[in-house]
Amino acid sequence: MIDSAVLSLAKDLISRPSVTPEDEGCQEMMIARLEALGFTIERMVFEDTTNLWARRGTNGPLFAFAGHTDVVPAGPLSEWNTPPFEPTVTDGYLYGRGAADMKGSLAAMVVAVERFVAENPDHNGSIAFLITSDEEGPFINGTTRVVDTLMARDEIIDMCIVGEPSSTAEVGDVVKNGRRGSITGELTVRGIQGHVAYPQLAKNPVHEALPALTELAAMEWDQGNAYFPPTSFQIPNLSSGTGAGNVIPGELQVQFNFRFSTELTDELIKQRVHQILDKHDLEYDLNWILSGQPFLTDTGDLLDAVVEAVSEVNSRQPELLTTGGTSDGRFIAQMGTQVIELGPVNATIHKVNECVKVADLEKLTDMYQKVLEKALTR
Amino acid sequence: MIDSAVLSLAKDLISRPSVTPEDEGCQEMMIARLEALGFTIERMVFEDTTNLWARRGTNGPLFAFAGHTDVVPAGPLSEWNTPPFEPTVTDGYLYGRGAADMKGSLAAMVVAVERFVAENPDHNGSIAFLITSDEEGPFINGTTRVVDTLMARDEIIDMCIVGEPSSTAEVGDVVKNGRRGSITGELTVRGIQGHVAYPQLAKNPVHEALPALTELAAMEWDQGNAYFPPTSFQIPNLSSGTGAGNVIPGELQVQFNFRFSTELTDELIKQRVHQILDKHDLEYDLNWILSGQPFLTDTGDLLDAVVEAVSEVNSRQPELLTTGGTSDGRFIAQMGTQVIELGPVNATIHKVNECVKVADLEKLTDMYQKVLEKALTR
Repeated sequence: MIDSAVLSLAKDLISRPSVTPEDEGCQEMMIARLEALGFTIERMVFEDTTNLWARRGTNGPLFAFAGHTDVVPAGPLSEWNTPPFEPTVTDGYLYGRGAADMKGSLAAMVVAVERFVAENPDHNGSIAFLITSDEEGPFINGTTRVVDTLMARDEIIDMCIVGEPSSTAEVGDVVKNGRRGSITGELTVRGIQGHVAYPQLAKNPVHEALPALTELAAMEWDQGNAYFPPTSFQIPNLSSGTGAGNVIPGELQVQFNFRFSTELTDELIKQRVHQILDKHDLEYDLNWILSGQPFLTDTGDLLDAVVEAVSEVNSRQPELLTTGGTSDGRFIAQMGTQVIELGPVNATIHKVNECVKVADLEKLTDMYQKVLEKALTR
Repeated sequence: MIDSAVLSLAKDLISRPSVTPEDEGCQEMMIARLEALGFTIERMVFEDTTNLWARRGTNGPLFAFAGHTDVVPAGPLSEWNTPPFEPTVTDGYLYGRGAADMKGSLAAMVVAVERFVAENPDHNGSIAFLITSDEEGPFINGTTRVVDTLMARDEIIDMCIVGEPSSTAEVGDVVKNGRRGSITGELTVRGIQGHVAYPQLAKNPVHEALPALTELAAMEWDQGNAYFPPTSFQIPNLSSGTGAGNVIPGELQVQFNFRFSTELTDELIKQRVHQILDKHDLEYDLNWILSGQPFLTDTGDLLDAVVEAVSEVNSRQPELLTTGGTSDGRFIAQMGTQVIELGPVNATIHKVNECVKVADLEKLTDMYQKVLEKALTR
C-alpha cells in the first residue's frame, strides 16, 4: 500500500531528528512544496533558530498556519518500542518523536493547502506559514521575532490556525480558542541574620513573610469567566536558610506564578501583590517576568470557520477551551489576530512512544482544507 | 617580669593548637599539676575525643570544675594582629585563640585549686575536673559520655562550676545560673506534584503549610519567668521546589527550633506543634531532635557561694542570667547537679584577636578559690 500524501510527508518530517533548536532541513522540505504552489519564501534565521515566513497572495485577509519543526528530546531510548526518529506505522498509529507535537500537523497543513490551491487557485486573501524551530525551547528567537518583523512592516495576520495538539480523545473534539496569561514573580524578602539563641537581635524573613504568603495563597484573584477558569496563584519554589540549625536566615527567596484569565491584566496583578506585601511591611525586592498575556478568540470569521469545518468532518461541534499551558499563539495574538489552536490528540506528547492515529492525520487535513474554504472563498 | 602562675599556664595551654576535637596535650599538662595535688586521674577517650575525669577525695559533696581544652578554628590568619597560637600579652590583654573560651578559665581553675589545697589539704567533700575536647564540636563523645559513665556508677556531681565565658563587661558581672532548652523539628509536608498550569490536579505543600507555619510563628508559647525569657520559635531553614518554574512541588521541608524556658517541657512543645499541624489537616512527617532540656540553679549552696565569692572580689553582686546558647552545663545538670557558669568576658570569643584581660585571669582565680572555700570548708 502506498502512503497517503499526509502520511508520507509526516514520516519524512519525523525522520529528521530536529530537537530544539535544530530544524534539520524540515523547513526546506516544506519550502520545496510551498514554492511549487507559488508561495514567496522568507527564511528568517535568528541566532540558533530557523524560522520560515511563506506567503501566497498579497491581498487581505491574511490567513496563516503556525507551527514548529522542533521536537522535545526522545528521552530514554530503551523505553521506545520503535526508534523515535524512524517513523513506524503499527495498528493504525504512526509512531515517532513529533508525530503528534507537531510534525503531523505540519504535514496536514501543507497537504491541505496543496489541495485547496489546486481547487481554488484564485482564492481570496492570502495564505501564509509561520514556522519556527524553538517552540519547545526558550521561545526567544522564534515566533516572537517573526511577529516583531511582520509588525514592523505592518504585515498583520488576520486569522491564524496553530497546529498544537489541542484534542483529547479524537481529533477536533477540543479546539483552544484562547490561553491564560502567565506571569512570574521572583521575590526576595530581607530580614536580619542572627543566632537562633538571640532572636531579639535578628529578624527572620521567613516569619516576616508568612502572613503575606498565606494571604497570597488564599486569595481569590477572580472568578474566571465563560472561557477561563479562575486565575491561579502557585509557589513553585521557595527557600531560606544557611543550612545551619542555629542561624536565623537573612533572606527568603520565593518564586510564584500566576496563570491569569482575561478578567485580569499583568498590571492589576502586580498592583495587588505589591499592596499585600506593603501592607505586611515587608522589606523586599520583586522581579516580574511576563511570559504571556492572555488571549481569547470568542467571535469572528475564523472561529465560525473552524467550528463549521470540524463539525462537518466529525459530525459534532468541537469544545472550545482555554486550558493548559502557554503556546506560541500568545505571540501571534499580540497582532490583534484571531487565533485558534487545532491539532491532534495530545495524550502522548512529550512522552516515549509518541504517536498519532493515521486516520486522524487525514481528518485533520480535511479540517484544515475546509477552514481555508470557509475563510477564503466566501 | 615573671608571669603569674595563672598567666603562665594560660599561655602554655594557648600555645597548643587544639582545634576540636584535638586536645594536643593540654589535658596532660593539667594532669601533671593535678596529680601533684593528689588527684586520681581517669583518661576517658571516646572515639576522636579526649576527656579527663580527675577527683581529689572520696567524700561528698562532690564539687567539680567543668570545661574544654578544644577551641574553634582561628579563622583568617591575616586578620590576627599576632599569631593565634602564640600567646602574646599587649597592653594588659592576653591574645590567642582560646584565651577567653576557655583556656584562661582552665588555668584559673588549676591555680585556684592549687592554692586552695595548699591552704586546706583536708577540705570537706571532693574536688573534681570534668574536661573534654569536643565542646565546640558535635558534643557527642565529650561531656555527655563522661556524665553517662559517672551516672552508671552512681558518682553524682553535687555542684559544678562551668568555666564558659559568662561575663559581658568585666569578669563576674554576669554568671549564668541556667540555660534554655533547645529542641529542633524537621518537618516534611507532603503534597502532590504537578504542572503549574493544572493546579486542580496537584496539591501544593507550600500552600497547604502556610497557615500552620504562620500560626506557629505568631504563637506565644509562654511568657517566660523570673529567670527565663519567653520561649522562642524560629525557622532557620525551609525549602521547596524542583527549581523549575512550571512545576508544583511535591514536598516542603521546614526545620524549626525552640529555645524553651522551664515553663515548658519538650513533651508539651511536641503536643502543641502536632495539634496545630493536625488542625490544618497537613500530611507530614516530623522528626524531633532534643539538644538539651532547660536547667536552672536558682537556690542552693553553690549559688550562694558564687554570689558571695564574686561580690567579695568585685564589690558588687553578679547578675544571674539564663540567656545565650547551650553549653555542656546542660549535660551535667541531668545528674541533678547545681550548675553555674562563671568565666571571662565573652566579647571576643570565636572572633579573630580573641583576648582576655590579664587582670581578669587573676580575679577569676580568686573567685574560683573563694567558691571552693565557701563550698568545701564551712
